[in-house]
Amino acid sequence: MTKHIPHDLALEAINAGVAKAKELKQRSSLSIVDGGGHLVAFVRVDDAAFGTIEIAHNKAFTAAALRAPSGHWMETVQPGASLFGMERAASRPLVVFGGGLPVYDGDVVIGGVGVSGGPIEADEAIAHAIADVLNR
Amino acid sequence: MTKHIPHDLALEAINAGVAKAKELKQRSSLSIVDGGGHLVAFVRVDDAAFGTIEIAHNKAFTAAALRAPSGHWMETVQPGASLFGMERAASRPLVVFGGGLPVYDGDVVIGGVGVSGGPIEADEAIAHAIADVLNR
Amino acid sequence: MTKHIPHDLALEAINAGVAKAKELKQRSSLSIVDGGGHLVAFVRVDDAAFGTIEIAHNKAFTAAALRAPSGHWMETVQPGASLFGMERAASRPLVVFGGGLPVYDGDVVIGGVGVSGGPIEADEAIAHAIADVLNR
Amino acid sequence: MTKHIPHDLALEAINAGVAKAKELKQRSSLSIVDGGGHLVAFVRVDDAAFGTIEIAHNKAFTAAALRAPSGHWMETVQPGASLFGMERAASRPLVVFGGGLPVYDGDVVIGGVGVSGGPIEADEAIAHAIADVLNR
Repeated sequence: MTKHIPHDLALEAINAGVAKAKELKQRSSLSIVDGGGHLVAFVRVDDAAFGTIEIAHNKAFTAAALRAPSGHWMETVQPGASLFGMERAASRPLVVFGGGLPVYDGDVVIGGVGVSGGPIEADEAIAHAIADVLNR
Repeated sequence: MTKHIPHDLALEAINAGVAKAKELKQRSSLSIVDGGGHLVAFVRVDDAAFGTIEIAHNKAFTAAALRAPSGHWMETVQPGASLFGMERAASRPLVVFGGGLPVYDGDVVIGGVGVSGGPIEADEAIAHAIADVLNR
Repeated sequence: MTKHIPHDLALEAINAGVAKAKELKQRSSLSIVDGGGHLVAFVRVDDAAFGTIEIAHNKAFTAAALRAPSGHWMETVQPGASLFGMERAASRPLVVFGGGLPVYDGDVVIGGVGVSGGPIEADEAIAHAIADVLNR
Repeated sequence: MTKHIPHDLALEAINAGVAKAKELKQRSSLSIVDGGGHLVAFVRVDDAAFGTIEIAHNKAFTAAALRAPSGHWMETVQPGASLFGMERAASRPLVVFGGGLPVYDGDVVIGGVGVSGGPIEADEAIAHAIADVLNR
């Protein structure tokens, strides 16, 4: 039995992400998806570039789809490595750089968080701020 | 000269939409897009069916893309009418039933709202609750 | 042997279309494609709604692809008629309402014109203003 | 507050691009998009190969979507670099080689320019000729 992410908790988590993005002075897109990879909540902070929207979605999707942080796959998909090309192996793009995190209920993945807009370190810090609210 | 929709106002509008959805007991997807049709904020209320996500997006997109409520086109795209097939005349589907509304800055369209999940009347009532916050 | 549409003639034709759109007070998208249906020239007049861009392209494409005005097919694609559904019978949408016109070199079709943004009569008048420059 | 690009200025900029393309003897596609990535004006010079059309569009789109020249991302998306795969991380391809430039109103990005058809240096020179008209 998996639980869904309630919308009020999702919005609370989005607000925590907005606060972290403001603290880090990043204009970012913040996405939360459910265990099926489908959008639960989203906000684009300070009119972030619209090209970040879908990357945020796809980071969250990747984390839910493969049940691991998006950056987990970076080395293994490189040319010459064992999963070369995995990020383009399905119809929807997977993202292999950081900023996507799974959401857990115990040790069951029930969703994903994705952030895009700043340097990877900032995206990851904001994603953790969102996931921390959802993982409790 | 057009303005963008600030993220805090967008989230306030989303919250007004959530309140209206709860009042009407509708599990719905609520989307806000900017003047280019790109997502600004979103929430899915009470684990609404995931099939409603993209319909909400496309209602908001349609309202921004054609600068009219989505339901405005219902009659003219019917068999025998002057714009038959317009809802499928571009690569992204346009939605011609109600629940999509333009967002205005004076008389300039600066975005769109889309709601999907309930009967059209409920979708439209929730969309108006969201747009009322954005149009002030 | 078909001829291509020179870019300076295409821009002259676009300017004629802009003048007609201004005269009719229509905010419209104006497209010209070659004999292969590929874009030659385009302009969006007075910040016309962005939803009209692709419809203009697809009207021009339809005129070149089927070598007839886009509105030619309106009756035969209706429910119960002989080509029902033809407008969705290929991967790219065909448009069956007016505003798309073939471009001729003698009696050979060497391109198409598409206009979207106003009532069908205005779209057609602007399309004729463009085609008149190209058809000489 | 952002401004849109007027159609007459867009066509003036396109003409400057045509002149530069002729000077450099390049058969090229020239695209201008608005701040939402939607086409404002286009011309294909001297029957340039039709495969250049969409690349020009996508360069302009990339510059608007990420608010940076298309070539800005070339190093960071390489194998082993921090944003590996970003050019395919959304449904619409981003272009990471040169020829796409943002259009500015002050320091706000209000559009993009994309040129495709020649060597990168020529594409960039033509893109600058277009952007110089739009950025004033």
